[in-house]
Amino acid sequence: MADAPPGTVRASRASVVRLMVPTDANFTGNVFGGSILEEVDRVAYITASRHAKGTTVTASFDRVDFLGPVHVGEVLDFEAMLTFVGRSSMEVAVRVRAEEVHSGRSRHVVQAFVTMVAVDAAGRPVPAPPLVLETADERARFEDGRRRMEERRRTRPAPAA
Amino acid sequence: MADAPPGTVRASRASVVRLMVPTDANFTGNVFGGSILEEVDRVAYITASRHAKGTTVTASFDRVDFLGPVHVGEVLDFEAMLTFVGRSSMEVAVRVRAEEVHSGRSRHVVQAFVTMVAVDAAGRPVPAPPLVLETADERARFEDGRRRMEERRRTRPAPAA
Amino acid sequence: MADAPPGTVRASRASVVRLMVPTDANFTGNVFGGSILEEVDRVAYITASRHAKGTTVTASFDRVDFLGPVHVGEVLDFEAMLTFVGRSSMEVAVRVRAEEVHSGRSRHVVQAFVTMVAVDAAGRPVPAPPLVLETADERARFEDGRRRMEERRRTRPAPAA
Amino acid sequence: MADAPPGTVRASRASVVRLMVPTDANFTGNVFGGSILEEVDRVAYITASRHAKGTTVTASFDRVDFLGPVHVGEVLDFEAMLTFVGRSSMEVAVRVRAEEVHSGRSRHVVQAFVTMVAVDAAGRPVPAPPLVLETADERARFEDGRRRMEERRRTRPAPAA
Amino acid sequence: MADAPPGTVRASRASVVRLMVPTDANFTGNVFGGSILEEVDRVAYITASRHAKGTTVTASFDRVDFLGPVHVGEVLDFEAMLTFVGRSSMEVAVRVRAEEVHSGRSRHVVQAFVTMVAVDAAGRPVPAPPLVLETADERARFEDGRRRMEERRRTRPAPAA
Amino acid sequence: MADAPPGTVRASRASVVRLMVPTDANFTGNVFGGSILEEVDRVAYITASRHAKGTTVTASFDRVDFLGPVHVGEVLDFEAMLTFVGRSSMEVAVRVRAEEVHSGRSRHVVQAFVTMVAVDAAGRPVPAPPLVLETADERARFEDGRRRMEERRRTRPAPAA
Repeated sequence: MADAPPGTVRASRASVVRLMVPTDANFTGNVFGGSILEEVDRVAYITASRHAKGTTVTASFDRVDFLGPVHVGEVLDFEAMLTFVGRSSMEVAVRVRAEEVHSGRSRHVVQAFVTMVAVDAAGRPVPAPPLVLETADERARFEDGRRRMEERRRTRPAPAA
Repeated sequence: MADAPPGTVRASRASVVRLMVPTDANFTGNVFGGSILEEVDRVAYITASRHAKGTTVTASFDRVDFLGPVHVGEVLDFEAMLTFVGRSSMEVAVRVRAEEVHSGRSRHVVQAFVTMVAVDAAGRPVPAPPLVLETADERARFEDGRRRMEERRRTRPAPAA
Repeated sequence: MADAPPGTVRASRASVVRLMVPTDANFTGNVFGGSILEEVDRVAYITASRHAKGTTVTASFDRVDFLGPVHVGEVLDFEAMLTFVGRSSMEVAVRVRAEEVHSGRSRHVVQAFVTMVAVDAAGRPVPAPPLVLETADERARFEDGRRRMEERRRTRPAPAA
Repeated sequence: MADAPPGTVRASRASVVRLMVPTDANFTGNVFGGSILEEVDRVAYITASRHAKGTTVTASFDRVDFLGPVHVGEVLDFEAMLTFVGRSSMEVAVRVRAEEVHSGRSRHVVQAFVTMVAVDAAGRPVPAPPLVLETADERARFEDGRRRMEERRRTRPAPAA
Repeated sequence: MADAPPGTVRASRASVVRLMVPTDANFTGNVFGGSILEEVDRVAYITASRHAKGTTVTASFDRVDFLGPVHVGEVLDFEAMLTFVGRSSMEVAVRVRAEEVHSGRSRHVVQAFVTMVAVDAAGRPVPAPPLVLETADERARFEDGRRRMEERRRTRPAPAA
Repeated sequence: MADAPPGTVRASRASVVRLMVPTDANFTGNVFGGSILEEVDRVAYITASRHAKGTTVTASFDRVDFLGPVHVGEVLDFEAMLTFVGRSSMEVAVRVRAEEVHSGRSRHVVQAFVTMVAVDAAGRPVPAPPLVLETADERARFEDGRRRMEERRRTRPAPAA
């Protein structure tokens, strides 16, 4: 895995699409945050694993903004792409849109950043392949991602007992 | 809903993408057929409801071919599109591909035809909007769909007690 | 398993009975098709595995007719029996009745045909035991089943990439 | 419901049959007690509601004996029948057998007694229809059930804060 | 495990706390008995396994009293403690309180006794560590538990075919 | 709800305790991040709703650090407490410890900050009751919380289409 070739942002983009059903509802009849976070975790796993060509684990959810309620019966589209790659860790941005099926109208409902780490079979971090940046946007997002990564490293709690 | 405008095949196409997780596994460690059929039902519902601009219910699964085993950890892409529209009923073709995340290789694993019916709030059939055919392929699939629909009508069991 | 003795239709009949609970409901408050298909798959697995005295996998759902809505709180009885046995494949007919608990009234709500295949530990098809036909009805269903099997073989999509 | 006619033991007997799947397994690979108790509760509900011709709620599980491990892949048959009917409360005996699908061998794995209460729409107890006893066995079980009911009433904790 | 040191009642006490969500609801909108029994089983497992310092399995639910309805949106607190320890078997008392979140009011809703058995890797019973009794209350509960255990042994059905 | 009295940090503290079972496992056999985030969301809801004496919704997950793998069979203790209260929004800190049942050893595995908002029946923000700070620690955490809240407000994406 350490030898996996560099990859572009495009090559590891992923999309997970899911219809929200009654078992996803919370007390108010809207969709439960937990159902959404579960899928955010899965799509981030797909993008990071495609890039690393190997197993990855979630290190942190760095920011998840719920921008408005999501309703049962809507279709959610979770779009994930890499924004930054460090030595072993990869930052994935996940953008979720909700579509009202009958009208076809959709809106941006969740924005998240997830940090994944490439690991070997024993769960130890291994180098992630370099990220090939192809556009000015990708380069700008990479610099923002690097800044967030440094901030995270500075403030991450120690795994003390 | 009876007044919903005609729609193209493209306008109601839908895609549902899902990572297969351990709770989807059957006794052999492969993915359980039931987990797949559940998503086939949901994506067919999305396509039919987008076209009808209203509620739809499943009338029949007309054919579901499992072309090979699906493994936990693979990403399944369920692509649905309308093939035929009668008075109230709509035939949806669903094609499922499985992608092995690390290698990026994918294969065609399931092919299904589902018949959905446009209904009103009381569950009574209502007219579905006409289907606008734009290509020779779409017209050929429509004729095949019409033939299957007639065969189904001929052989459908009566809802007797 | 190839050596398993021939079996009668009666010997492998199976019945699965389930109370429909709120988590089985779809948007309209009726029972979700997916919940029903999951149990159709399971009862077909029981019947085919009893006959084969070994592992079986689902090859296709050949026809599933939903004859009317099913309500939360009703008891569903899934009755499965073999209709046809080829070399490795077995056709199972599944008939589902819904019973309204308070009144005791029941009605026929789903009719399905499922094709199962006997496999070895590596998932390769193995011969299924012959089916012993004891009544004129069973012989008639066997001939109908053979016709459907030939039609399926003719129209099954190739497992191409 | 208070006016529902008397019923025999036979008229309200119920059977729920379920294939045990991997999500039913506990840490040791055997089936989790909770999965079994859930179905015991449901089949007791069916029997009591058939007899009462109305809604019933669980008052107590009076005894559940697990007589041996249950394995994933086995088919469980939950048989429920009334043993005793008091004013509003009904005692249901549930006997569970596990069948190993390939060999067809089965064994008695769980024995339970559940007390259900007939209630109106507001959840208040209402009279249950009398139980018609047709055999000496049924009469003997009724006397045993009456004894257990008196013992339960004597030892039931007060619903204090 | 046979060599695990004696333990006090306090040392193995356990508490499981859960918010009741819409998927826990039954037909009446109240929480389904099955959802509660599942957690009773789990908290009894935690207490017995803490005491035995090894694997334990459920032998019986000896009495579960539902003292009133539980509502979706309430927080349930399942408190488990050992009342009696025999050679391999351990009796666990589980007391469940329901708290209405907004008002903070709580009430006693379920009382249960569960018998767990210490087992080795092959599922055979092994000695459980002695229970150290520290208070008069604990000694009184131990005597009550011993009486129930003897009664259970006397009335437990044989695991016959 | 706007008139709910001020509350201390202690009064709304909450704890949710859960045994991790096989259905919580991901591909590596460790517990899936999604199962943990679901409970983090629920315990934050309990704490915020206890303080607000009314309904609350999740506005953002501001930071979730996974400090190490969690294993099936471990008991997770989610401890939630308020750190900051603004006009309608409340910041909840959630600290998760995992306990290995047999040995009794535990370790800190997840640290999270969640922002909840008090809402009325129509989902519109309403004032949250003031937070009464009783210790120097609580005052320090409140200042840290205020800083994070300002940073979040500055960087929250607009809920644009």
